[in-house]
Amino acid sequence: MTLERLSLNTATTKAWDLREAVEGAARAGLPAVGLWRDRVQEVGADKAARIVADAGLRVSSLCRGGFLTAADDVAARAALDDNRRAVVEAATVGTSELVMVVGGLPACPAPGLAAAPAATLPDPARDLVAARQRVVDRIGELVPFAAEHGVRLVLEALHPMFAADRAVLSTLGQALDIAEAFDAATVGVVVDTYHVWWDPDLQRQIARAGAGGRIAGYQVCDWILPLAADALLSRGHVGDGYIDFPTITRWVADAGYTGDVEVEIFNQAVWDTPGDETVATLADRYASHVLPHLGDRAS
Amino acid sequence: MTLERLSLNTATTKAWDLREAVEGAARAGLPAVGLWRDRVQEVGADKAARIVADAGLRVSSLCRGGFLTAADDVAARAALDDNRRAVVEAATVGTSELVMVVGGLPACPAPGLAAAPAATLPDPARDLVAARQRVVDRIGELVPFAAEHGVRLVLEALHPMFAADRAVLSTLGQALDIAEAFDAATVGVVVDTYHVWWDPDLQRQIARAGAGGRIAGYQVCDWILPLAADALLSRGHVGDGYIDFPTITRWVADAGYTGDVEVEIFNQAVWDTPGDETVATLADRYASHVLPHLGDRAS
Repeated sequence: MTLERLSLNTATTKAWDLREAVEGAARAGLPAVGLWRDRVQEVGADKAARIVADAGLRVSSLCRGGFLTAADDVAARAALDDNRRAVVEAATVGTSELVMVVGGLPACPAPGLAAAPAATLPDPARDLVAARQRVVDRIGELVPFAAEHGVRLVLEALHPMFAADRAVLSTLGQALDIAEAFDAATVGVVVDTYHVWWDPDLQRQIARAGAGGRIAGYQVCDWILPLAADALLSRGHVGDGYIDFPTITRWVADAGYTGDVEVEIFNQAVWDTPGDETVATLADRYASHVLPHLGDRAS
Repeated sequence: MTLERLSLNTATTKAWDLREAVEGAARAGLPAVGLWRDRVQEVGADKAARIVADAGLRVSSLCRGGFLTAADDVAARAALDDNRRAVVEAATVGTSELVMVVGGLPACPAPGLAAAPAATLPDPARDLVAARQRVVDRIGELVPFAAEHGVRLVLEALHPMFAADRAVLSTLGQALDIAEAFDAATVGVVVDTYHVWWDPDLQRQIARAGAGGRIAGYQVCDWILPLAADALLSRGHVGDGYIDFPTITRWVADAGYTGDVEVEIFNQAVWDTPGDETVATLADRYASHVLPHLGDRAS
């Protein structure tokens, strides 16, 4: 197996702390890890950087900045401040790619918080067009700071089933519409199969992203059914669901993407599996469903 | 309240049979019903037509044809035959609008059937591009028959979370791309807020649909969270969730739509509520969230 582009996202092996994830990835022959901020913050960004470097790995991305849709100024200011900290963390751990989950409607609480009854909300809390415009405006506010730190803001379109509560950014095309107002080195997009596989315009938008030098990451995991009680946890191992990985991977390869392929799975059954077993499975699925279609000469 | 454009879809009052639904709608002052085929078939299309006519109501649409994505010829032929029966039923009950839920991937069983383990499926079962092309081809096969019967095939884009198991038609734009190959009197689209509310291109596509005379129906119900264990049952009363009805309704009105507004809710709690109460609630929500934005001079 040629795993030279395969990256373990720390969300996939939830029971592992940062050091365990890095060592587990290294044991399996993976050259890279994608980091979530919680794992970085547990040890601090400087130490996180050393742990990864000492293992001889690289960081493919940091997840996540974002949650930029607040309608009130105080919350918006707090979100911008937190995103600046995320930019600094990304630079410190040694990745140029900060994945941005932009946030949902003001009507929806941040994940984990209790919701106000929707029926009691004023109409502006449901104004999706306005929420999307706030994302555009606030990305614009963050760009200079990110650029100073050599960090690219990587816009992640989330599946439309998360449009209310997690990300008003719902398609790759919409992400590119925002990104293209900025330099490609500063604002990019990530292609996450789980979120975009259904899109009738996907091939064209991947090509557009590639032509513009905007593809900052390729994340793979599968769409499995039935949806989990918490829809966020419905992501499955590549091959366990309904996504056509050969086709989408070829589109990404044809678009010129040569970076890491990150596996990011939120799934209770996967989390309940020993980490080494999970990494072995994802490496195996990568080798069978993804790698042959990446078009690398080496593969 | 001016309910002259409000239609009760029989799926909303699941405990009611056809006659009860028609009488319940009439009692509440609604002029129309949207019918599901199960309710029609229980009494037969001729009798269904009489029940509706005797109550002085009209039929806003018949749900549903579709499920046209089968990869094998026998299943495809059976689906086409069933759709021809649906066309005849639509004409018989007195509506020109047959709503089409086009079907999911061959890898996914029809709703209610057991799934083969996805990992055992051959790749073509996941070929979304091919499944979509089969929809185009088979709509084309059905169009002459529908036209002979004065019935319009109404393409329904379903929320992308149903792309694997229910409808590979995922956006209004994609539906219009298919519809526009045919006469507007023969292939139309329905705007169902639940399925399309998240779409960043929605305003433009509604305008496109209106300009082409393609809007065959406007269905309203709300996006509520958390998703139900069966995601299909997550539809809520208008106002109970996160959809911006004033805005979308204005887009539909601006597009020139003057037809019925159907309320179609799949939700166990709604189904457990007495029908008259459900109809009163939906009429009230229609009056407060939808009607003021329809732009009718009468309202």
